[in-house]
Amino acid sequence: MQTRPFLTELADLQTRLLEMGGLVESAISTSLLWLVEGRQPPAQEIWDVETRINQLHIQIDEVALRLTALHQPVARDLRFLTAAIKINSDLERMGDLVVNIAERASSFLQSAPPRPEIDIPHMSRLVQSMVRRSLDAFVQRDEEMAQAVILADDEVDELKDAVYRELLQKAEEGKYPVRAAFDLIFVAHNLERMADHATNIAEDVLFLVKGIDVRHHHLA
Amino acid sequence: MQTRPFLTELADLQTRLLEMGGLVESAISTSLLWLVEGRQPPAQEIWDVETRINQLHIQIDEVALRLTALHQPVARDLRFLTAAIKINSDLERMGDLVVNIAERASSFLQSAPPRPEIDIPHMSRLVQSMVRRSLDAFVQRDEEMAQAVILADDEVDELKDAVYRELLQKAEEGKYPVRAAFDLIFVAHNLERMADHATNIAEDVLFLVKGIDVRHHHLA
Repeated sequence: MQTRPFLTELADLQTRLLEMGGLVESAISTSLLWLVEGRQPPAQEIWDVETRINQLHIQIDEVALRLTALHQPVARDLRFLTAAIKINSDLERMGDLVVNIAERASSFLQSAPPRPEIDIPHMSRLVQSMVRRSLDAFVQRDEEMAQAVILADDEVDELKDAVYRELLQKAEEGKYPVRAAFDLIFVAHNLERMADHATNIAEDVLFLVKGIDVRHHHLA
Repeated sequence: MQTRPFLTELADLQTRLLEMGGLVESAISTSLLWLVEGRQPPAQEIWDVETRINQLHIQIDEVALRLTALHQPVARDLRFLTAAIKINSDLERMGDLVVNIAERASSFLQSAPPRPEIDIPHMSRLVQSMVRRSLDAFVQRDEEMAQAVILADDEVDELKDAVYRELLQKAEEGKYPVRAAFDLIFVAHNLERMADHATNIAEDVLFLVKGIDVRHHHLA
């Protein structure tokens, strides 16, 4: 087998990660169409995206491990490959979460509940922006942008808590159907988990740029 | 730095993964004490376990990548290191899920609801057994045991769906408090996600033993 230059391989790996990130970001919009436009999410489209994400996931793992074994990278290149494996894992989980969101959306619409007053579209735009910026920070090795993503995670947590409190209270008071409240709380919960994965990616960027592991930073 | 023999390093990596698995398994019991014995889960104990899991997670990643870079492993050894990185990631997420379960348990007890009739202890025992067997299958390279874990996942899914349906119906009919129903559904949801991670580990064992990637098998 003819081997390609190492740096070309690394660039190719980065391109595939960006493709995954783009798919995740646009799938968030697709799966939330229902809330904005009040129609069923296009299930087939979301499944196709998840299939593509899963293919990329397997390929990226294979390539990253093969490169690590073949080229004995050290320092920054080894950190890049480590980061690629981790980011790959986070993006794959985001793909699963998008499917969960679409399923909940579908269940929500089946019960045809009244339109809720809570701001899930705002939450989803924030999460999309975190996904995009975490990958921009990765490509540009931009420490500041990575820090901004980590900060945004707190805002998403607060939004999720607000959604939870409001819907729970309304359901308890009989002002909103219990089943529909459950569905929306799960959507918010899945969005918040996507934000956690974007935060993981931002932490991987800091690890890549600064050479320190900021995950589990309370252990430091 | 003196390098240790490669096989010793691999054995050491496996031991650390087993330590993580043991911690996860016993933390499931600890966090579910409340349902069996009706008392608050010991939060500090669960946090200590999660801290230890997070330390092991970082160490295992570092060791696995360093070994891959240093020894240029091929075939089975490379598959072992790939599997170790993946299993490590799954165990770390299980640690997070145990913390989520304990938090929900705590919230559930605060509202002092009537004891539910649903069988979450049964579900949790099944998940614990999946965790244990997935790691036994890893250590013994036992294809059959790995297959059994993958099959058990369907049972957990069914239990979760049953919990969801029952609690939702009771909450809708005003026979069970909405908030407490939410908490228990989230507990069941987190247990089901732990079963998914045990299934991932079993799939990694098949990859290790047979050299084929059974993740995302609908793509094959």
